[in-house]
Amino acid sequence: MPAHDKSLAYPFPISMRMYQEQRQRLGVSLQQAFPEGGHAAVLQAASEVPVNSTDCNYLFVQESYFYYLFGTELPDSYGAVLANGKGIIFIQRLPADFATWMGPLPTPQGVKAELEVDEVYYADEMEAILASHGVHTAEVLKGTNTDSGLEVLQARLPEGTSLRKSTDFLYFALSSQRCYKTALEADVLRYVCKVSSAAHVKVMQLAKPGMSQHHLESTFLHDVYYNGGCRRVSYTCICATGCHAATLHYPDNNRAIEDGTMALLDMGGNYRGYAADITCSFPVNGKFTEAQKVIYSAVLDAHDRVMRTMKPGVLWVDMHVLAIRTICTHLVAAGILKGDIDTLMAKEIMQYFQPHGLGHLIGLDVHDVGGYMKGCPERPTKKDCCRLRTARVIEEGLYMTIEPGCYFNAALMELAKANPDVKDHLNLEKLEEYSQFGGVRIESDVLVTKDGVINCTLVPRTVEEIESTMAGAPFTKEVEVYHN
Amino acid sequence: MPAHDKSLAYPFPISMRMYQEQRQRLGVSLQQAFPEGGHAAVLQAASEVPVNSTDCNYLFVQESYFYYLFGTELPDSYGAVLANGKGIIFIQRLPADFATWMGPLPTPQGVKAELEVDEVYYADEMEAILASHGVHTAEVLKGTNTDSGLEVLQARLPEGTSLRKSTDFLYFALSSQRCYKTALEADVLRYVCKVSSAAHVKVMQLAKPGMSQHHLESTFLHDVYYNGGCRRVSYTCICATGCHAATLHYPDNNRAIEDGTMALLDMGGNYRGYAADITCSFPVNGKFTEAQKVIYSAVLDAHDRVMRTMKPGVLWVDMHVLAIRTICTHLVAAGILKGDIDTLMAKEIMQYFQPHGLGHLIGLDVHDVGGYMKGCPERPTKKDCCRLRTARVIEEGLYMTIEPGCYFNAALMELAKANPDVKDHLNLEKLEEYSQFGGVRIESDVLVTKDGVINCTLVPRTVEEIESTMAGAPFTKEVEVYHN
Repeated sequence: MPAHDKSLAYPFPISMRMYQEQRQRLGVSLQQAFPEGGHAAVLQAASEVPVNSTDCNYLFVQESYFYYLFGTELPDSYGAVLANGKGIIFIQRLPADFATWMGPLPTPQGVKAELEVDEVYYADEMEAILASHGVHTAEVLKGTNTDSGLEVLQARLPEGTSLRKSTDFLYFALSSQRCYKTALEADVLRYVCKVSSAAHVKVMQLAKPGMSQHHLESTFLHDVYYNGGCRRVSYTCICATGCHAATLHYPDNNRAIEDGTMALLDMGGNYRGYAADITCSFPVNGKFTEAQKVIYSAVLDAHDRVMRTMKPGVLWVDMHVLAIRTICTHLVAAGILKGDIDTLMAKEIMQYFQPHGLGHLIGLDVHDVGGYMKGCPERPTKKDCCRLRTARVIEEGLYMTIEPGCYFNAALMELAKANPDVKDHLNLEKLEEYSQFGGVRIESDVLVTKDGVINCTLVPRTVEEIESTMAGAPFTKEVEVYHN
Repeated sequence: MPAHDKSLAYPFPISMRMYQEQRQRLGVSLQQAFPEGGHAAVLQAASEVPVNSTDCNYLFVQESYFYYLFGTELPDSYGAVLANGKGIIFIQRLPADFATWMGPLPTPQGVKAELEVDEVYYADEMEAILASHGVHTAEVLKGTNTDSGLEVLQARLPEGTSLRKSTDFLYFALSSQRCYKTALEADVLRYVCKVSSAAHVKVMQLAKPGMSQHHLESTFLHDVYYNGGCRRVSYTCICATGCHAATLHYPDNNRAIEDGTMALLDMGGNYRGYAADITCSFPVNGKFTEAQKVIYSAVLDAHDRVMRTMKPGVLWVDMHVLAIRTICTHLVAAGILKGDIDTLMAKEIMQYFQPHGLGHLIGLDVHDVGGYMKGCPERPTKKDCCRLRTARVIEEGLYMTIEPGCYFNAALMELAKANPDVKDHLNLEKLEEYSQFGGVRIESDVLVTKDGVINCTLVPRTVEEIESTMAGAPFTKEVEVYHN
């Protein structure tokens, strides 16, 4: 069992001031949208989700918009933000005997003290309380999550309420606001990124041929929870080795780790809702082969070039193109692809080698909201860019992943070979050599500053760093600040 | 990190013969129910469940009835069992580009070989294939989970199918069948119980005052996954210490572990759907106080008496009464309760000290189906028995938990004091001494044999075993067989 890593300073304290600030910002939006007054934003917390039809629930995950404003994992409650920024929570009135099973029931006084909101009542008092504040229209959230395509519909107002309900304002206002991280939010994101980085290092030092992939997942889950207080991860861990690394969301994590293969581990903890999303790729036996170095260096070069270029004002699509062009250049240099770089890029050949976008916004959702908002650039149509989760202009305060990758996916290689535009640019013999290689992804979480980015991810990245860390050398790294 | 415990022989192989046998048994029921033929049981697998409205899913949990018959975690598929016991699986025809994200797509040939079913097709072929087998009526599952109260409704037949649909037969037939474990199922259940027992021992040896409760949960989760291949647990871990142990489903697991308190840890791994459900109670500093011994010994005596009495033909309600009467007797002996045992029992005083049933069926669901079936005894009405999850006559092949407990829950103590029938039997001074005690629960998983039970749970139980194990002595135990 790991000793408690005191450098992580767990539990990381989150000031309720963070949520107060977030409510204040929303209050300003309400004032601007409804100068005549009478509107309040009303959000509903998530409910417990039963596992199939049983009486066991999945580990509770709070709805992100609600969490963003109120900082609590209370299920089934409501929260209202008034135009003056005041926050009011309405909790469920639970039957007394719930206390036997769930512990002392939440009370308005207790919740008010804990969450530092302005007022707390029971949900059945909501209408009267909001009316007493002059509120006649509840702005409730309605929209579509652009990654899942699922409806984000909240605040089924308590039965019998006669508050007017309006749904046009809140999805846009809150999604826009969530893109720009406050300094307090950035601190939490840096913490969860640090915790997750430390767990990645532990896994990297543990990994050996002959183990099972699930040993890596288990070790990561344990480390982020035990040392970092992350009871859950932000997404299902991807612990792919060998050819499975070519499957982008490899779900199984149950194969034997074979000597001579690469591991691709995409795992990130979650702390009070805030997500990390980190991928490390490394040779499972601790030593890169020349063939592994070729692909790894290509992806690392792409990662580093974006890191040294990204800053407010640049287009995210341009960063993506910089990354895939860099990888393409390496693939040509290695003789895997043949031809002129401009031609290869014009033929969109990288759709077959990096079939995903360069990265995404991250925050309370691992694929955070706000990627494609009204007024922001639309999704590109080119086949090597169309999978981007945002096409925004980079701005200070955005928090994003940078995650170039290069894969040898059997199904995609067949498609490439079948594409008459592309097939003559493939060195089939070389591709055959890499047919069982899998893939490499290098993913870091960065905060955009006024003139560059801060890389919050603290894991070994160069071939030398990885080999020495896996050989047992202690690994330490400081946050890297790029002025670009 | 723990070394891989080879005695667990992970991965535990599950023979597909187990599922074949289960289909055969259902086939016999179909023949009996529909001697005229033409009926097949059709079940639908679970779907992925998104976390709120995002594109992340909870870790997949297969629907238990489907899992029971087909042994696969394939989501969104259908399975049919014919009256001759043949099993046919119908898988989804997925878009080719899913392979980039999820790996090679399942094919009928691959699924047939892996699952050893008789035939595999795509779901859009279901109607034609079943018709070719002379099936005109799909028996689909419909019922209500008696623990959750949620509807169990399966097999929304693929659109456009003209198979007749009938829902009366399957819920009863399959729920009844699932109660009686086959020898092959019992092996899996014993494996997951062994894995979970070993993890409990590890946690017990790690626990120290000054740690946080979450360190215990994290350690358990890691051990059952790393060493036992249990990617998930069967229910949210309960890691209660001190007064929190009086909350039956304490959900937080985030408090500091205070010296001098008892821990109550209710945690069980899950292996290929099959559940363990084990509770250990122990002093966090490794040494029982006299006051702790009083309550612990009372509960252990109840646990052991049931273990030595239970066998086919006895009533589960009688086992429950034996347990609570035993605890009651100890509470009187300790001076916590006053009066004659018969009187105290007649006044149903134990509803305040053990506000839950003695145990429950366990299998693919931790609170397994079949507790209250048509033809079985109904839920008792007495207040000290009404929370029982079953009132069945004990039969060979049932697999159940035995989990007596004794708690000092503040809300319940207030109710007891307010009950004029009961209040004069309470020694208020003694109760005050125990007001911060929390509670003790001792929970084991047993298989009913022809003349008793096998206790599959391999954890320290006596005061001496617990104290020596916590002092670092190696702990080993063999499965205990009771001929009663």
